[in-house]
Amino acid sequence: MAIEIERKFLLANDDWRVAVERSESIAQGYLVGAQALRAGLAHASVRVRLAGERAWLNVKAATAGIARAEFEYPIPVDEAKAMLATLCDGVLEKTRHYVRVDGTVFEIDEFAGENAGLVVAEIELAAVDAAFPRPSWLGSEVSTQVRYYNVNLIAHPYRQWSPGERVAEGAAC
Amino acid sequence: MAIEIERKFLLANDDWRVAVERSESIAQGYLVGAQALRAGLAHASVRVRLAGERAWLNVKAATAGIARAEFEYPIPVDEAKAMLATLCDGVLEKTRHYVRVDGTVFEIDEFAGENAGLVVAEIELAAVDAAFPRPSWLGSEVSTQVRYYNVNLIAHPYRQWSPGERVAEGAAC
Repeated sequence: MAIEIERKFLLANDDWRVAVERSESIAQGYLVGAQALRAGLAHASVRVRLAGERAWLNVKAATAGIARAEFEYPIPVDEAKAMLATLCDGVLEKTRHYVRVDGTVFEIDEFAGENAGLVVAEIELAAVDAAFPRPSWLGSEVSTQVRYYNVNLIAHPYRQWSPGERVAEGAAC
Repeated sequence: MAIEIERKFLLANDDWRVAVERSESIAQGYLVGAQALRAGLAHASVRVRLAGERAWLNVKAATAGIARAEFEYPIPVDEAKAMLATLCDGVLEKTRHYVRVDGTVFEIDEFAGENAGLVVAEIELAAVDAAFPRPSWLGSEVSTQVRYYNVNLIAHPYRQWSPGERVAEGAAC
């Protein structure tokens, strides 16, 4: 088990694109999704993720905030494909770009499909209050805003968000 | 992935006990349990199982019947314990006895706690219609009776069953 300490930000502009080291396509779905969590019928999300020729099953405690208990196990790609096709309600597709700033890796997820238009930068930290670089392209923090959780983007994708739900975007960090 | 083909029976008497080869204690809980499945908010149960010094995460399609898609992954024991303690609603405890009859292994689960009194024999088969031995201690088949599913024994344990729910017991195979 790990405690995942993750902070999540919108992007203030596109300047990060010139610094991308590598990108990969990710498809993920949930065996336990947002509806079961919201109904209090589960205490953790269970995610199937496929990234190129690798795949994982991931269990993440359903607590809102920066630090969450997380368990992750590599699984065969064909089994991930079977679970995504038959046991998940919807599949989230995104391109993950890796950008390194002063030794810190930002994972910038550019969503597709019903979530096209949404771009979110994540960093994993060793402590909740750990310092990290703040490049000029880093926008508002949305770590505690649950509508940005990937698990919630399946049932309530970005294209269906109201103007009010998108209001924070573009604001300075 | 495997297709699990499993048939489940009650026990007509205790004669199987003299043929037990080995027994082990099992504790298991569910990240996706019966309530989420019944509410249609998940398509698979997700089980954490601890048996001695081994543990697994198991994903099983939530279809009633004999053949079900199943995915199983070994996980560290300490992670299983952490998930059972913090992410599962209740833990099912049982002793699993292994009994071999003419080369076929019967797994006989003797439940404890709120399910004490319930004993169920399971066999895994290569095909739905595969032949298997029928020793005299094998009782009624309950393969398609969902109240006997382990996932359902958490929220609706055997001790709370009505006389009607227990009615099939003891009938001949």
